[in-house]
Amino acid sequence: MKKNYKMTICYDGSRYYGWEHQPDRDTIQGKLEGVLSRLCNEFIDVTGAGRTDAGVHARAMTANAVMDTPLSPEEIRDYMNRYLPDDIAVKEVKEASERFHARYKAVGKLYCYTCFDGPVKPVFQRKYVTVLDFHPDLEKMRRAAAYLEGKHDYKSFCGNPRMKKSTVRVVDKIEIVRRGGFIYFNYHGTGFLQNMVRILTGTLLEVGKGKIDPERIPEILEGRNRQLAGPTAPPGGLCLMKVDY
Amino acid sequence: MKKNYKMTICYDGSRYYGWEHQPDRDTIQGKLEGVLSRLCNEFIDVTGAGRTDAGVHARAMTANAVMDTPLSPEEIRDYMNRYLPDDIAVKEVKEASERFHARYKAVGKLYCYTCFDGPVKPVFQRKYVTVLDFHPDLEKMRRAAAYLEGKHDYKSFCGNPRMKKSTVRVVDKIEIVRRGGFIYFNYHGTGFLQNMVRILTGTLLEVGKGKIDPERIPEILEGRNRQLAGPTAPPGGLCLMKVDY
Repeated sequence: MKKNYKMTICYDGSRYYGWEHQPDRDTIQGKLEGVLSRLCNEFIDVTGAGRTDAGVHARAMTANAVMDTPLSPEEIRDYMNRYLPDDIAVKEVKEASERFHARYKAVGKLYCYTCFDGPVKPVFQRKYVTVLDFHPDLEKMRRAAAYLEGKHDYKSFCGNPRMKKSTVRVVDKIEIVRRGGFIYFNYHGTGFLQNMVRILTGTLLEVGKGKIDPERIPEILEGRNRQLAGPTAPPGGLCLMKVDY
Repeated sequence: MKKNYKMTICYDGSRYYGWEHQPDRDTIQGKLEGVLSRLCNEFIDVTGAGRTDAGVHARAMTANAVMDTPLSPEEIRDYMNRYLPDDIAVKEVKEASERFHARYKAVGKLYCYTCFDGPVKPVFQRKYVTVLDFHPDLEKMRRAAAYLEGKHDYKSFCGNPRMKKSTVRVVDKIEIVRRGGFIYFNYHGTGFLQNMVRILTGTLLEVGKGKIDPERIPEILEGRNRQLAGPTAPPGGLCLMKVDY
């Protein structure tokens, strides 16, 4: 009998072309579908809560898949972990209601972008941080971040120039925290546009560098023009921390 | 004027052929000597506290080098970090007395070997742990470890079959600690033979698996025969944590 399963997945995205499957390229969705299709002897569709970009990581991406298998949820998890590569791990598999949909049912997401501006590069975390060559002004970045919270049209922060649908989103909170040489940008929201978290971070870093005035943020939002915002921060610093339902 | 500098170095050894320089191969010592020789315009010898094997990591290896440079210790550190690859970082450079020698003056070393036996592979630390396919018996391993502490002839735990010099060493303490799925083996000692920490770990894991009785350890030590001890545990789980002077 077919059942719907909810999965929580952790991955180091460094060597992948992002979440979404693509022919002849390694993607997270592609790897998961490959393993589950092998388990079930038929093609299994895996639906993710979102599509992370190439090189972006996740500590707890969620996904769902409808499958017919005699294995228990723990056995499915163990089977997947046995056949998945080292840089993808399934933390949990649970039976979910028939109506559970990893993307449509998500009510909140937390992304964390990590920068480092200390004197000594963090060798063991080097693939998960963006090393800065300047010391950003956190107070200025926090002032700018406050303007970016709320319900806005984030067209200026959208990486897809051909985006036809609404670019209105809600960002509940942006926290900027320093711990030693590490600076964490936590983005709480219901959903984000393509590259949006990286463009928000790139823009906040320009503010932290003194290149963009925090008080100019409302004007950047109103302009609805990608050219007005800062650059897209590199993917390695970004990690999807959790998805709420 | 030539001065002697003490350096503290951190590295991810995954892609290196160990500490010691070798022609045409990437080694930690080779990289450090390359950068310092470029800084000083002459060949600079870097002396390490020890020689880590290929694939072994360090959070705080120490080394010394005699150099003539107008740069301050902080400037030397920053210069090195600018030109070293991402997986090697210099945490500190300090002027040391003329007689300071990173190897001869070391009075203690701490190595940590990390294993993992939890249900979900640790994706972000995967290069720094050895994943086990069984759950070792910690009490048995601790009983075996107690026999391995003290002053002994560790010939059975030496990876170099042609070792001509004394194989007597002092292991002050071996701690075995579990935190969640992680099992840490901490080895405190004054000096270790080639591969010794990895062979001690491989042997303790055989004890933890029930293949070697803890009470057989004295006999393995007395046998002075590499064949009696367990296998050499893989390098990725091993990290040099600190060197005392």
